[in-house]
Amino acid sequence: MSTVTTDIEGLLAAAAAAARPFGALAPATRATMLRAVADALDAAAETLIPVAMRETRLPEPRLRGELVRTTFQLRLFAELLDDGGYLQVTLDAPDPAWPTGPRPDLRRMLIPVGPVLVFAASNFPFAFSVAGGDTAAALAAGCPVLLKAHPGHPELSRRTAAVVVDALAAAGAPTGTMALFEGDEQARAALVDPRVRAGAFTGSEHAGRLLFDLAATRDEPIPFYAEMGSVNPVFVTEAAAAARGPEIWAGYVESFTLGTGQFCTKPGLLFVPAGAAEADLVKLVTGRPATPLLGERIAAGYRHTLGMLADHPAVRVLVAGTEPTTGPTAGGPTAGAVTPAGATADGVTPGGVTADGAAADGVTPTLLATGIADWLRDPGVLAVECFGPTSLLVTYDDPADLLTAARALGGQLTATVHGEDTDDVLAADLLAELRERVGRVLWNGWPTGVSVSPAMTHGGPYPATTSLHTSVGTTSITRFLRPVTYQSLPARLLPEPLRDDNPWGIPRHRYGV
Amino acid sequence: MSTVTTDIEGLLAAAAAAARPFGALAPATRATMLRAVADALDAAAETLIPVAMRETRLPEPRLRGELVRTTFQLRLFAELLDDGGYLQVTLDAPDPAWPTGPRPDLRRMLIPVGPVLVFAASNFPFAFSVAGGDTAAALAAGCPVLLKAHPGHPELSRRTAAVVVDALAAAGAPTGTMALFEGDEQARAALVDPRVRAGAFTGSEHAGRLLFDLAATRDEPIPFYAEMGSVNPVFVTEAAAAARGPEIWAGYVESFTLGTGQFCTKPGLLFVPAGAAEADLVKLVTGRPATPLLGERIAAGYRHTLGMLADHPAVRVLVAGTEPTTGPTAGGPTAGAVTPAGATADGVTPGGVTADGAAADGVTPTLLATGIADWLRDPGVLAVECFGPTSLLVTYDDPADLLTAARALGGQLTATVHGEDTDDVLAADLLAELRERVGRVLWNGWPTGVSVSPAMTHGGPYPATTSLHTSVGTTSITRFLRPVTYQSLPARLLPEPLRDDNPWGIPRHRYGV
Repeated sequence: MSTVTTDIEGLLAAAAAAARPFGALAPATRATMLRAVADALDAAAETLIPVAMRETRLPEPRLRGELVRTTFQLRLFAELLDDGGYLQVTLDAPDPAWPTGPRPDLRRMLIPVGPVLVFAASNFPFAFSVAGGDTAAALAAGCPVLLKAHPGHPELSRRTAAVVVDALAAAGAPTGTMALFEGDEQARAALVDPRVRAGAFTGSEHAGRLLFDLAATRDEPIPFYAEMGSVNPVFVTEAAAAARGPEIWAGYVESFTLGTGQFCTKPGLLFVPAGAAEADLVKLVTGRPATPLLGERIAAGYRHTLGMLADHPAVRVLVAGTEPTTGPTAGGPTAGAVTPAGATADGVTPGGVTADGAAADGVTPTLLATGIADWLRDPGVLAVECFGPTSLLVTYDDPADLLTAARALGGQLTATVHGEDTDDVLAADLLAELRERVGRVLWNGWPTGVSVSPAMTHGGPYPATTSLHTSVGTTSITRFLRPVTYQSLPARLLPEPLRDDNPWGIPRHRYGV
Repeated sequence: MSTVTTDIEGLLAAAAAAARPFGALAPATRATMLRAVADALDAAAETLIPVAMRETRLPEPRLRGELVRTTFQLRLFAELLDDGGYLQVTLDAPDPAWPTGPRPDLRRMLIPVGPVLVFAASNFPFAFSVAGGDTAAALAAGCPVLLKAHPGHPELSRRTAAVVVDALAAAGAPTGTMALFEGDEQARAALVDPRVRAGAFTGSEHAGRLLFDLAATRDEPIPFYAEMGSVNPVFVTEAAAAARGPEIWAGYVESFTLGTGQFCTKPGLLFVPAGAAEADLVKLVTGRPATPLLGERIAAGYRHTLGMLADHPAVRVLVAGTEPTTGPTAGGPTAGAVTPAGATADGVTPGGVTADGAAADGVTPTLLATGIADWLRDPGVLAVECFGPTSLLVTYDDPADLLTAARALGGQLTATVHGEDTDDVLAADLLAELRERVGRVLWNGWPTGVSVSPAMTHGGPYPATTSLHTSVGTTSITRFLRPVTYQSLPARLLPEPLRDDNPWGIPRHRYGV
């Protein structure tokens, strides 16, 4: 844990001072700044990647890919800004015959909400950390960012922040547009400070809810966009198991063990016809190499949740992977997760130990199984997220039970159906249930691997998120914008996007003109 | 207060059952239902208007105009549905070369959140009540509505609900699409029920915050869109006072006394050059006729807040209007507002007394005054909303103090500047401060009279609202929608708006195709 002392009051004052000039920039100007940040991060790759490898134990190809995603994301937001449609400019011409009474000249646009507090995650040291998705969306919207560093990769966080801050300054952004800080107390002070206008978080349900509650109980509540837990159920029909069983089982094992199972989209539940998959899956899971977890606290949380599942009277252990060894400081996930500033994308909170401890030994995957009748008796426990390389097979005899299972699920980031052409009646019913509970529905695919694109939704009903928004993709920018309408202003006092001559060339909706 | 016993469990079950079939209808089909409701309300006008007059004491022309607004609003949402662009359909074509890895087929649309709990307001018995803006927006989005009736106009509420429910049924909407209920306990039970997925409210800050807190502390928090207090400051420059003083003073008095001052957009503060306005305003306000308040509790709240302002050591009473007489049941506004189900748009909570009491005697307007230095010492009290025909004149000598005053304001629905061509430097600075605090900025106009149109924003930073959304105008529909992305689904299992053949003919954003 860092011993850096952060002047949080100074950072808050600087962010507040930057909000108006940064927010008033033409979107195309902010676009050049985002591209400058992306270029600077690319240029710093050879410095940043080794630090990331050392602090997170993630393999180099994964980290290089993640950095590509991070800089691509910044450039995708730059494109969105160049277009300008995200401002949702709407112009109502004056209309003396308007049925509710003479309509004045009304001009609406979205404006930035002000400084945003972003909590970095541990499991994406680039893409959901200092220069990650929340930061990119907030900066794109025109909001200064106060970034709470994740203690799981402190040096990487500081180095990344230095690159971002320098690139923004060189590109002409106001001082205070971006700042990194560390420390739980500082994070709490910032979250309840009136100058902070929104919060964004990726991590555990426990920590996310705690922070959401802090934001909601302020004198002036602010939106707190937490992306939290998800178990990402996968439903395999009888026809799909018969037609493509081996292919599905292989895909499943790859998906739930990817990145040592440390993804919020990891499939934690696989519903399969009884007898169809077990033998094959046992073969596929047995003998896989051990891979490291991100840190001690994650290892402790994984051991705790895995133990709870494996010890459940209705659960059989098909393949017992190695349990992580943990040092004496590790506690259960709850013990760690109550300190909000240590929030992570993994269900637990890293404490004073970096990844140099026992978690480095790595773990092999675990496969559990239960029957759907048992599962339906205790979904509150058997649908709990287990952050790490474990998944639970749920076997069924009656396909109608799949609908019952879908109805028993809480909010999810994703749900997946593997089916065939002959499954349309069941699949339609299942999809109708699932879409009411999730942000993304997949067909014959796997939920890991979230594309950064305009049509992506990475969100879902609580506890997947605390809002109606996505945290991945270009529409995530709307989290940090709110509408303002100008009524009957002279042209010379209107913001550029609302002027008749449209100097920024923004696409606009016009009514009555 | 009604003695009707409501089976809230039955209503919740019916709303939950209606959610999927109602939400799955083609938008154009829901549009015909909204138009059927509008037609039925128009046809029932001669029945509803007399009941409204008796229960609210509002004058007939105002109520007829409000009914026009109400049915127009339903038809405007119908137009939005016919267009379909509100679904924000976005299609990402598969792209094997996508920089973050091969992009699958991704198709995003907005879907309804599910049953919505709407709290009716007292001061708009049509436009913010049973068939008002929140109801229209929720039904348009495809969400069943549970409507908490306002006890200030119980018979009108029941009759209006009967018209709406019958019209929806005749148009083919599922049973449970709309239901009225009464009672505080029922409202609390509904708000914390898992089947309710969002709440909407127009009323006092006190009641709104209480309900917001209930929604935010559920096991699964839901968005609660409360439109609450606002003092709607108006700033008059020296040049405007010199050029158009009499016109401005007349407009101000009309605006703050309109509807006996019972509008959330009533201008409660007028910043004017010292010596410019007092004499004229005293003449304009003196001798105006008494007009009735909506009910006993509003009268009690008005008397309480007016007394607090008039007794403030820094405040001078320029014109002492009549204070409302109140019966023995009336308490301060706080006493009433703690019961959430009695929430109103007026700062207090009607209790067991309808409008037949002392409030019917009516009140004449009150004009107060203070200096800007005094105002700046105590904006926490002197910028409090006083729901009724009272406004506070704040005189200044140094125009720079206007900026200081703007910075001292909390969130507002509106702010207005009256200025001339020569004021551009001051006006630009003032507008920059104001837009960070409000949802609508006006120039040389008055905030009362909120146009129902695409570009309207009726919302603002807390305490004006608890969200980043408007509650008036077509974009208010987004409060009741959330995104879902379909990944790689076969065409036959996709919802209509996402199919390649686009059977509903919806405008769509396409990427990579």
